[in-house]
Amino acid sequence: MIRITELARERVERVLGNGDLAVDATAGKGRDTLFLARAVGPAGRVIAFDIQRQALAETASLLKQNNLAHRVSLVCGGHETMAAHVDAPVAAVMFNLGYLPGGDHGIVTRPETTRRALASSLELLRPGGLITLVLYSGHPQGDQEKKAIVNYCRELDGALYSVVQVRLLNRRGAPPELLVVKKSKNQP
Amino acid sequence: MIRITELARERVERVLGNGDLAVDATAGKGRDTLFLARAVGPAGRVIAFDIQRQALAETASLLKQNNLAHRVSLVCGGHETMAAHVDAPVAAVMFNLGYLPGGDHGIVTRPETTRRALASSLELLRPGGLITLVLYSGHPQGDQEKKAIVNYCRELDGALYSVVQVRLLNRRGAPPELLVVKKSKNQP
Repeated sequence: MIRITELARERVERVLGNGDLAVDATAGKGRDTLFLARAVGPAGRVIAFDIQRQALAETASLLKQNNLAHRVSLVCGGHETMAAHVDAPVAAVMFNLGYLPGGDHGIVTRPETTRRALASSLELLRPGGLITLVLYSGHPQGDQEKKAIVNYCRELDGALYSVVQVRLLNRRGAPPELLVVKKSKNQP
Repeated sequence: MIRITELARERVERVLGNGDLAVDATAGKGRDTLFLARAVGPAGRVIAFDIQRQALAETASLLKQNNLAHRVSLVCGGHETMAAHVDAPVAAVMFNLGYLPGGDHGIVTRPETTRRALASSLELLRPGGLITLVLYSGHPQGDQEKKAIVNYCRELDGALYSVVQVRLLNRRGAPPELLVVKKSKNQP
């Protein structure tokens, strides 16, 4: 079984090395944060965002269990404020949109703030770096958010960014989709 | 710049190991054949198909330059005859559809034979193995072929196969698309 979240991590793993700075734009239960904390190595650093204290508590606990809390700064705030917290070029930014699994399903990421966070990420990204976005259309605002983000990415200048869309073709229901945005190595 | 053919090779590389059997269903200029010949290691074997002698000659020459001709059997015949030439479970099958670059653009793969070759590949694949298909919609029959193959893959039983579609979102014209079909490790 191919999992979209695994495909996102595989893409990110290819660009991250020891000493890199990475961002988890949606800490959630902390699984991507933990993955990034491992991938940036002992000299690296991760900044993880979430608007829900419950999410940050779960993420902190997962990092502590894995003795990696020292590599991660947790920010209780929206990912659209990213530029205020990130002070160096970023190698990778991961978004896993929608609601917190096991949390309040009424609290979801929103097209407008997600779009702003994505625009910030594009600015903060180093040449050759990449952004992954896992999009869900199974909840009511999810489909609207997915369309907004796909349309935004479709318009990105092909000389500066490559955007790849990854979909599961034969899965029933509304399986998640993945977008991978890679910044060209040669920026003007 | 992200290249679809590179993404296909990255997926295949993850499943191939020394001693494996792999198939290049469309040898063409031999680039995937060479990639597979390296990836199956000294104990591995590759069977490559093409209906055009020019393609097989170019492939043979590329393999010889790289001292890997001994790992590859070249078959001058349609990939829909695959089952007659492949005698063991296959770890990976690669398709790169359309016409031979630099050759006669009137000689293209066809929806019906491609579909039959794909059906054969699914049978011959070992559990956990995978098939990649690079599809072009830029030439007249290409769009029809792409639709036929996408529809065929959409109907594959999700318990037996995972199908992933990979598209370049912000590339002008008719960029190629990639399908990756993975056979479940646990087949009934």
